[in-house]
Amino acid sequence: MHVVGVDYGTLSGRAVVVRVSDGAELGSAVHPYSQGVIEEGLPPDWALQSPRDWIEVLKVAVPEAVRAAGIDPGTVIGIGTDFTACTILPATAEGEPLCYAEPDRPHAWPKLWKHHAAQAQADRINVLAASRGEAWLARYGGKISAEWAFAKGLQLLEEDPELYGRAERWIEAADWIVWQLTGVESRNVCTAGYKEIFQDGAYPSPEFLAALHPGFAGFVGKLNTAPIAPLGGLAGRLSAQAAAWTGLPEGIAVAVGNVDAHVTSAAADAVRPGQMVAIMGTSTCHVMPSDRLAQVPGMCGVVADGVVPGLWGYEAGQSGVGDIFGWWVEQVGRSHEELTELAAAQRVGEHGLVALDWHNGNRSVLVDHHLSGVVVGQTLATQPQDVYRALIEATAFGARVIVETFEAAGVPVEEFIVAGGLLKNAFLMQIYADVLRRPLSVIGSDQGPALGSAIHAAVAAGAYADVQAASKVMGKRIERAYEPDPERADAYDELYAVYRELHDAFADGRVLHTLRALRNRA
Amino acid sequence: MHVVGVDYGTLSGRAVVVRVSDGAELGSAVHPYSQGVIEEGLPPDWALQSPRDWIEVLKVAVPEAVRAAGIDPGTVIGIGTDFTACTILPATAEGEPLCYAEPDRPHAWPKLWKHHAAQAQADRINVLAASRGEAWLARYGGKISAEWAFAKGLQLLEEDPELYGRAERWIEAADWIVWQLTGVESRNVCTAGYKEIFQDGAYPSPEFLAALHPGFAGFVGKLNTAPIAPLGGLAGRLSAQAAAWTGLPEGIAVAVGNVDAHVTSAAADAVRPGQMVAIMGTSTCHVMPSDRLAQVPGMCGVVADGVVPGLWGYEAGQSGVGDIFGWWVEQVGRSHEELTELAAAQRVGEHGLVALDWHNGNRSVLVDHHLSGVVVGQTLATQPQDVYRALIEATAFGARVIVETFEAAGVPVEEFIVAGGLLKNAFLMQIYADVLRRPLSVIGSDQGPALGSAIHAAVAAGAYADVQAASKVMGKRIERAYEPDPERADAYDELYAVYRELHDAFADGRVLHTLRALRNRA
Repeated sequence: MHVVGVDYGTLSGRAVVVRVSDGAELGSAVHPYSQGVIEEGLPPDWALQSPRDWIEVLKVAVPEAVRAAGIDPGTVIGIGTDFTACTILPATAEGEPLCYAEPDRPHAWPKLWKHHAAQAQADRINVLAASRGEAWLARYGGKISAEWAFAKGLQLLEEDPELYGRAERWIEAADWIVWQLTGVESRNVCTAGYKEIFQDGAYPSPEFLAALHPGFAGFVGKLNTAPIAPLGGLAGRLSAQAAAWTGLPEGIAVAVGNVDAHVTSAAADAVRPGQMVAIMGTSTCHVMPSDRLAQVPGMCGVVADGVVPGLWGYEAGQSGVGDIFGWWVEQVGRSHEELTELAAAQRVGEHGLVALDWHNGNRSVLVDHHLSGVVVGQTLATQPQDVYRALIEATAFGARVIVETFEAAGVPVEEFIVAGGLLKNAFLMQIYADVLRRPLSVIGSDQGPALGSAIHAAVAAGAYADVQAASKVMGKRIERAYEPDPERADAYDELYAVYRELHDAFADGRVLHTLRALRNRA
Repeated sequence: MHVVGVDYGTLSGRAVVVRVSDGAELGSAVHPYSQGVIEEGLPPDWALQSPRDWIEVLKVAVPEAVRAAGIDPGTVIGIGTDFTACTILPATAEGEPLCYAEPDRPHAWPKLWKHHAAQAQADRINVLAASRGEAWLARYGGKISAEWAFAKGLQLLEEDPELYGRAERWIEAADWIVWQLTGVESRNVCTAGYKEIFQDGAYPSPEFLAALHPGFAGFVGKLNTAPIAPLGGLAGRLSAQAAAWTGLPEGIAVAVGNVDAHVTSAAADAVRPGQMVAIMGTSTCHVMPSDRLAQVPGMCGVVADGVVPGLWGYEAGQSGVGDIFGWWVEQVGRSHEELTELAAAQRVGEHGLVALDWHNGNRSVLVDHHLSGVVVGQTLATQPQDVYRALIEATAFGARVIVETFEAAGVPVEEFIVAGGLLKNAFLMQIYADVLRRPLSVIGSDQGPALGSAIHAAVAAGAYADVQAASKVMGKRIERAYEPDPERADAYDELYAVYRELHDAFADGRVLHTLRALRNRA
């Protein structure tokens, strides 16, 4: 028996065929979106996508993956999906995206997770929530993001009120794609909790929303149009139309929608309390189940059942990681390989530098996208590989701040597991082990989210009792893949003390916001 | 009638033939030192030179310059010299460098100004002087430098005491070369004041020196072997041997020794109170006569008659300027021209950056060579030209700190005059005018020190009554070559406020010294 997992990324969708009995990945296929990220002709900070691109992935990548696996499609018992989030769209009560009828109105299109044009709305939501003492605010480290459903929804209302009125649904792509597969609307607990401010069984109150904008009072009516469904749950059965698209048998199980980062926990068999999965790529997302509820400063959110049913799910993030290294490589016109080789020959501290990894702002624990990078300690002898190494170390220090902040808040981090593209860089991984002073585990798959979705499909199909049981068999994790070196770890403690001092000195943004304001004025 | 000026730099010597009546530069020649800066096989921070290289300049460059000028050598009435300082050597009572007899002992050779291996000795001198309340310490902004005569002399004593005992003279190259020209020992007031702690007619006391090291008590006996002679004074007459070397007439006037930076004031006709000359190259040296004596924090020194007789002479410095821009160009593999063109197209503040220009430490006003550079405000959109411009601005901010510190101490800066290689960069010059909020004058010669030495030769030969009178005729200065733009100056005020904040925050060295210590340990 087999399951199919489909991972919807920023630029493409990937399907993988997985054997239910042991998680073997038998075949996969990637289909790039023909429209990709739609930014042209739009104001700054806008980023849209096309729902048709997502359907194409079902039509192209799924059959290709099945062919590549060399299996009989009749042996597939379920399909699961994960999506970037919060990627969200206005739709009719039948689930038709408004952009089908109104292609010329930008607000009719799905807003991609990295659409950042609703910052003003997010700021107002945060100020109002803080002043009213809204209880849910603490569940998001004290601030909700401009990327999330309420900020983007308020932007829609304020900038295209007529279209807002016609949007009977404001729905995550994660749920919309499941609707397309099943013909039945569902809402997953993960995006509801992390992106739609669904906490303790309720959304923000109509009074709160009306105080933001009188027309916003009924906004929740566009969200609470289906029960909140658990991760790994059965969203419905594959429709005849979706069976035709995918070539899979009509009526097989379709798992409840999920998010790329969160579903990776299952792929890494890291669904028990204290297992922090860091999905490290251009940025890093940290996901961790825990049996304890706490207010962790600067976390992205804590959601009941948000990673796996029965546990609190925590999320945190670093907004610039691989992006920063790539930026430096571009600055100095050298290759990652070359700089890595030179940097790897150094002893800890030899470059005399400490950097702050805020080139793309800081998500956790400062929640300030208007911060910027700092490099301290250059001399006339400083070389490109010195800064390269210092930037890698800065992101490791940033990760340590997050881990320490969780533990200081009473949420133990028992194991640190790395997934994502950067785990291929052994030099970087060793730095993280040394800086964190703990062994690193790594995921045993290079298509973690798709595998995670397949695992959820197996649970939805009833092949396993729950996500933990399925993950134990089908997930892949290499424990203690990197061990910290005590001597290097001691040396890093001293550099980390400098990082913390700079971190705290620049955290208030007084200097960095001033520079940004002067830049924007110029 | 003509005079010859000889400028002894770090890598070469330059001779110029100048017409006495109007300062016209008729011909010049450069001779690179064959041994250059001697560093190979020596411990870190050591830098030596060979006296034979200096003599070669007299033999080669002077006759070449006379030939290039197309003049009759018989029309030359005087020769003047300037030197890097403190470049200093041990010699016999006859002026023979000890390295002639002891070529295999490093301490027998002249220590170049940038020999930095006597820092430990300088530190002890400063601590002791402060604890004893030595009055002269304030004349050096509170700290003497490891580059100067006492630190280097104490290093000689402690590391090669036998050679120290044989050194009947501890003499500046500036004075040694004049001795070679005249056959008569002299000591110039400029190096005596700025490098040998000669203040108010006295050197540091034997008690103070004995407290540093019992064997150091008589050190001054190696210095005070000739009267202190005024700048522009007649040191002696050209000896037969020196006439043979140079092809100049025996018996012509030889001016008292001088220092490359200080002699440039005469070349720029900037020898009146409040005329600050900034010699901008790899580093910047600021020289200014004033009629007021004050304690300016972090100045290099204030010396009576130290720039021009009859006035107090102030010196300050920035230890990294052109060096820092060159370093960045090397980092990113782009050219100065390319980065300048891109940076020049920007509006003030557009790059969102502020840097601290401490990549080679900070001379004025912090007097701390163990500081290092800082760059603040990078984002993923930051480009190489952004940092390039920010580094240029940082050095301009550093210059403004110096100017403001002088004025706050009650020493007015009436005019800012630029000399040195960087004045060719019009973009950089305009930034300085905008940052300083004042017009910039520029020197009208590209061989300022050699011209300045020639002017001093004319005074020594009696062609002019004093240095001011000679400078007025022979010196060259273009007033208001760059005017500040009020709008840009306003914008720079805001960036400068950020620079000052960072400057003061990092000034205590707590963070930067820690990084340096970790680097040195690694």
